[in-house]
Amino acid sequence: GGGAMGRAMGLVGLLVGLVVVPAVLLGAGFGRGEPPPEPQPAPSERDAASAAIPEDSLWPLPQSLRTSLVRLQLAPERFQVLHGAGSSAGPGCGLLQDAFRRYYEYVFGRSHWRKPHRKSLSAQGELSQLQVVITAPEPGCDSFPRLASSEAYHLTVTEPVAVLKADEVWGALRGLETFSQLVHEDDYGSFLINESEIYDFPRFAHRGILLDTSRHYLPLKSILTNLDAMAFNKFNVLHWHIVDDQSFPYQSISFPELSNKGAYSYNHVYTPTDVHLVIEYARLRGIRVIPEFDTPGHTQSWGKGQKDLLTPCYSGERPSGSFGPVNPILNSTYDFMTTFFKEISSVFPDAYIHLGGDEVSFNCWKSNPEVKKFMRKQGFGIDYAKLESYYIQKILDIVSSYNKGCMVWQEVFDNNAELKPDTVVEVWMANNYAHELSSVTRAGFTAILAAPWYLDYISYGQDWTKYYSVEPLNFPGSEKQKRLVIGGEACLWGEYVDATNLTPRLWPRASAVGERLWSSRNVTNLQDAYKRLSNHRCRML
Amino acid sequence: GGGAMGRAMGLVGLLVGLVVVPAVLLGAGFGRGEPPPEPQPAPSERDAASAAIPEDSLWPLPQSLRTSLVRLQLAPERFQVLHGAGSSAGPGCGLLQDAFRRYYEYVFGRSHWRKPHRKSLSAQGELSQLQVVITAPEPGCDSFPRLASSEAYHLTVTEPVAVLKADEVWGALRGLETFSQLVHEDDYGSFLINESEIYDFPRFAHRGILLDTSRHYLPLKSILTNLDAMAFNKFNVLHWHIVDDQSFPYQSISFPELSNKGAYSYNHVYTPTDVHLVIEYARLRGIRVIPEFDTPGHTQSWGKGQKDLLTPCYSGERPSGSFGPVNPILNSTYDFMTTFFKEISSVFPDAYIHLGGDEVSFNCWKSNPEVKKFMRKQGFGIDYAKLESYYIQKILDIVSSYNKGCMVWQEVFDNNAELKPDTVVEVWMANNYAHELSSVTRAGFTAILAAPWYLDYISYGQDWTKYYSVEPLNFPGSEKQKRLVIGGEACLWGEYVDATNLTPRLWPRASAVGERLWSSRNVTNLQDAYKRLSNHRCRML
Repeated sequence: GGGAMGRAMGLVGLLVGLVVVPAVLLGAGFGRGEPPPEPQPAPSERDAASAAIPEDSLWPLPQSLRTSLVRLQLAPERFQVLHGAGSSAGPGCGLLQDAFRRYYEYVFGRSHWRKPHRKSLSAQGELSQLQVVITAPEPGCDSFPRLASSEAYHLTVTEPVAVLKADEVWGALRGLETFSQLVHEDDYGSFLINESEIYDFPRFAHRGILLDTSRHYLPLKSILTNLDAMAFNKFNVLHWHIVDDQSFPYQSISFPELSNKGAYSYNHVYTPTDVHLVIEYARLRGIRVIPEFDTPGHTQSWGKGQKDLLTPCYSGERPSGSFGPVNPILNSTYDFMTTFFKEISSVFPDAYIHLGGDEVSFNCWKSNPEVKKFMRKQGFGIDYAKLESYYIQKILDIVSSYNKGCMVWQEVFDNNAELKPDTVVEVWMANNYAHELSSVTRAGFTAILAAPWYLDYISYGQDWTKYYSVEPLNFPGSEKQKRLVIGGEACLWGEYVDATNLTPRLWPRASAVGERLWSSRNVTNLQDAYKRLSNHRCRML
Repeated sequence: GGGAMGRAMGLVGLLVGLVVVPAVLLGAGFGRGEPPPEPQPAPSERDAASAAIPEDSLWPLPQSLRTSLVRLQLAPERFQVLHGAGSSAGPGCGLLQDAFRRYYEYVFGRSHWRKPHRKSLSAQGELSQLQVVITAPEPGCDSFPRLASSEAYHLTVTEPVAVLKADEVWGALRGLETFSQLVHEDDYGSFLINESEIYDFPRFAHRGILLDTSRHYLPLKSILTNLDAMAFNKFNVLHWHIVDDQSFPYQSISFPELSNKGAYSYNHVYTPTDVHLVIEYARLRGIRVIPEFDTPGHTQSWGKGQKDLLTPCYSGERPSGSFGPVNPILNSTYDFMTTFFKEISSVFPDAYIHLGGDEVSFNCWKSNPEVKKFMRKQGFGIDYAKLESYYIQKILDIVSSYNKGCMVWQEVFDNNAELKPDTVVEVWMANNYAHELSSVTRAGFTAILAAPWYLDYISYGQDWTKYYSVEPLNFPGSEKQKRLVIGGEACLWGEYVDATNLTPRLWPRASAVGERLWSSRNVTNLQDAYKRLSNHRCRML
């Protein structure tokens, strides 16, 4: 397809290293016994390969784009990406140096090993440089991306020099991605770009992918490959659902027994070095890493390495031998959590930690006489949601004391826990999520939408249109409420996902969510999206 | 998991080269908002790794198996697979030599590079050889597998030598696979096998996988990887749906324009060398390659490189510019098919060619005045099924004249074409396939079942049980009719499949079909199958 096939090292291409025919995979086809597909443009491989209109392969679509018919040629042996005059960043900015090299490779691939290119007859001039200018006094080269980071950029492509301006390095990263998508390779191997001007910025500040490394362990390589794909689609948050009932792969420094006993095996862990590597790889791509340590439910694996952490369930008068959620009535629980979240707060640099709080079953608590006694003492009656909130509020206090913000699943809000004002509520229940967004924001809380984007639910055929057609702000509420929806997440739960199928299951389906969260609200044309997404898939491969 | 992790080079492992947790991928898990799964055994990784009961990881289950508690150890640096006394095959048998080396690798992996192994304390002796004895005077080393080939084998594992007896090399290949599945590696890296005796043979002679290389091109490597997976599951037919409407990747020697014009690109073709390589790779694994050249429908791509082959459709009085099925009224059509199928008959050594014949739309024929005139002349009235049968019978005659048998999709039978008695009818329509099997066999024709095994139709969760629970002979009919059902095929149509997702989409789901077609009718226990399939997946990885 048009553009940077040198990116073949990323994504699915990394898994197979083979040429495939991408356009048709999104396209309609006729199978035996299946109803005729709805009318869809089905560009042939040849159409895709000759896509030469810049906006034909941009993904997600920029907020504002002007292009001209004037084409410039890029000579791989001469072309340079460098710091422009007046930039607050320079060669000492490792993040940008790394990005310059990476995007040079994406654009030209290994072609710069070849002989000098001929001049293309269709080019009206040469583009010899991309100058990157960071305008803020503090470019952010060594910092971590934050919710409030600026990702805006302004890209001007005119002969002989293109200029990419951004407040901070994060905008420069997004602009480099866009620049790489503008370059296309013609049938003779020439690299061409149309003169153009782009003003761009994200519609939503939080654009996440949830990966689940508990139900199946994901090797480090899979996570890094996914971070590459996220950068290609301008996602900026990895929501790392790192532990759950099934396994505890996070290797804790304070409590090594948690993974010693709770991981699938000694191999199926993320060491401190692994975790650091993921965070740094993400940072270099402008991606925040928000870890989720979900409690008090979804914690079976925690119980293996931490005695007395989980509630003993009773069968009649006696302990049944099985365990329920975290035991909320013991001081030792909060001592443990204090130490544990101190470590987490220091290991993960992001300002937020996801505390989970979803799907807490009350059966075990109800069976336990000590818990019942505690309920009476606290005056909770038989309302176990109050006990859950009691627990969650103590955890929120612990985490807040380390100057971290909290994310929680929607039940924590639904159960009327007293939340700090800066708590982010993640809406995941598919049933009437618009109503839930309405309630959460009416109460003044910030919200993230995940409900319509559970990509682990698969079905036959093209389902990307379903994800694409979601309008996150389509719920009853004031302008002020709408502003409290700061983004969304595409979630790939791991029941049926591991390293063997992660990438082709997630991409390019998650790209649909990527454009919804980045581009303007009125970018909704499915035929146009289909064409661009086909070319984008080809480029990612 | 138990057994030969050295096989990591094959299958999905070949794509990712990374350790994954396989047992859980088949297992039940709890996702947000999904109903609790049905009770299923969910062996942990540790359970799977210590599976030491031989039958715990056999797939498909042999017809007869006796095992003892006596364990023998295999020493990688000493163990040999070789030709036994009295075998009609010897070191000149390339097929077996190749298989010996391959299965040695599967069993021991790269471990034979390591230092000599210690003696296991749990072993009661050593197994030093596997002697393979072919009993038929003509072992078949240089021949191709046929429908009538014997795949039966008898395997005896006793100290100090295991003996694998088979009539022909094809049975030896199946027995080697089973032997490799019996060997397991304990926690200390020792290779162990229980003394055992197995008599085994397939329930059905035709056990196929359909791959579609037209809707998406599949690189050669994907096809070969799939052949490896087929051998691990004792499949013996690759139904190569090589061309269709979307593209014509088969490079014809007689009609090079077919792929020059009809393939997605010059790269997306199978050269004569490629085709030969697939056939030989399959032969070495006891797998027949049956090509499908589907006509008169599903032929849009043929029309690009062969003038006048397709019927011009009319819009009122005038040709509309679009084309329909193969034009059945021109002599030039049959001249072309005569030459074309002569080539196909010579390129593909199998005794059968699949001629398609499905889903022929009559609209274009009905619009064409020349076709209407021909219908009147032939006395077909307005029954276009008669025209279709007229065409198909001429093609059947052409192919028969080259001494090839024919396979066809069920419509050819349904439309009352006069079929040669040896024609194999493939039943694909999901609606009441039992009735169709009944009709086809009542008419005395041989049948293949594909209808319940369209693996391109995906859905959330574990769907392997659905494929596994099919009983192919569960239709009304006599014993004689039942004997006419010679097997089945798992079909992976290519609308949404290419090299990026082929392997994880097809395997291990197709394994369910593999056991159904190989093992005894009464092998139906889902819990037992789950356990063995989990271990089998781990071994395949």
